[in-house]
Amino acid sequence: MKILVSNDDGINAPGIQALVRSLEKNNDVFVVAPDREQSAVGHAITIHDPLKVSKKYVDDKLFGYAVSGTPADCVKLALCSLMGDNPPDLIVSGVNQGANLGTDIIYSGTVSAATEGTLLGIPSIAISVNSFSRDAKFSVAAEIVLEVIEKISDFNLPKGTLLNVNVPNIERNEIKGWKLTYQGKTKYVERYVERIDPRGNSYYWIDGDLVEREDETDADFRAVKEGYISITPIHFDVTNHDYLDSIREKMEKMLNG
Amino acid sequence: MKILVSNDDGINAPGIQALVRSLEKNNDVFVVAPDREQSAVGHAITIHDPLKVSKKYVDDKLFGYAVSGTPADCVKLALCSLMGDNPPDLIVSGVNQGANLGTDIIYSGTVSAATEGTLLGIPSIAISVNSFSRDAKFSVAAEIVLEVIEKISDFNLPKGTLLNVNVPNIERNEIKGWKLTYQGKTKYVERYVERIDPRGNSYYWIDGDLVEREDETDADFRAVKEGYISITPIHFDVTNHDYLDSIREKMEKMLNG
Repeated sequence: MKILVSNDDGINAPGIQALVRSLEKNNDVFVVAPDREQSAVGHAITIHDPLKVSKKYVDDKLFGYAVSGTPADCVKLALCSLMGDNPPDLIVSGVNQGANLGTDIIYSGTVSAATEGTLLGIPSIAISVNSFSRDAKFSVAAEIVLEVIEKISDFNLPKGTLLNVNVPNIERNEIKGWKLTYQGKTKYVERYVERIDPRGNSYYWIDGDLVEREDETDADFRAVKEGYISITPIHFDVTNHDYLDSIREKMEKMLNG
Repeated sequence: MKILVSNDDGINAPGIQALVRSLEKNNDVFVVAPDREQSAVGHAITIHDPLKVSKKYVDDKLFGYAVSGTPADCVKLALCSLMGDNPPDLIVSGVNQGANLGTDIIYSGTVSAATEGTLLGIPSIAISVNSFSRDAKFSVAAEIVLEVIEKISDFNLPKGTLLNVNVPNIERNEIKGWKLTYQGKTKYVERYVERIDPRGNSYYWIDGDLVEREDETDADFRAVKEGYISITPIHFDVTNHDYLDSIREKMEKMLNG
């Protein structure tokens, strides 16, 4: 398979390197990733600035293309330009240092790269490991991607839906199994620390890591916490259809009435 | 009502100024907006840099707070810090110069500010006018917000759901009415223009504005095109529940078996 690899931790991150090592055993791998960390960029694209592209070599071998943009920029640029007329069969984004679970998904650059892939019609996977350490078990997660790829045709993914895969930070033989999950609800108790700069101006720095979670069965974070690989099928159809169907008639009458 | 106003075109944009003029007639308005344009930033938040805040005055009167960050940063900072213990009753993001319809919603900073509001528990509205001109009919859209606000308690919005309102760029008396819509599907035919810088390096600039739309009844862009105000209830529950329910049992058996 021809696989496009991207991420949001940047092309020099250990997670993308573990991922490429794992994928290139059996696949033709093409890497386009941000030239620096792009965490929490959400689904941003760069429209008012040019994207600079440079080649990154590892051991005198071309590793991939480093782009001065976001994960979504990387995927868009790869598909619309850098890969020419040879689109990939699959896009894999990661391995992200830190899980992408619950509400956090909407801030995630890792997921955003996979989202852009599905918007452009290519099956896509986001893969993250549940540890913020540089020594996280990236290789375990990268090997698990191979297992997902082997099964992906069985998933029969609908157009526009990607797989968000999160792996606990433990050895493969300690992992309890696989769970298909939905996006749980996460709540941070956030604070900003206010400081004064040398010229007397205020600046603010985000802080706050207390988390409340609705601890539901089948929620993505619960599966990972309990030692399972979590797979969530996600899509960016953001209409609240249930609510819309329930109010449409009444509200249209009121508004137009 | 106490209303927090933000946007993604920046605090100096004509749309936010029209919005504030309209809202402040009957409400207590608090403005926190990016200090420069932040279009297409998606749901980005700034975690690795401090946010600088400055006060903006218009005619010697405090207009609001300008923040060196994204729309989501502005709303988070307003609620967690700048507004102290007086949270708003409502958040309005806009009036955006250009519609936020279809697939474009996931790139939208305007919608992102409203999304952050609902994540933090405050009812929120995103408002956009369907013109990219600086002379767009911002005042018409800003007056329409007052009509939406008057009706908002009737909407009985579920927690986590915001209203994405798009207004055609015509006079109020030319508008045909209101439609409750869902997010349609938009497809851009995108290109990147490749250029060479003075040092011989390639850079790429996004181009491509051809649009394909699945022209469905009740899609958001169709309502606006036909001269109606479009209201879409959106939420960021991105799980593809229908698909998940249809495959869970089979796939969990295959993966674990």
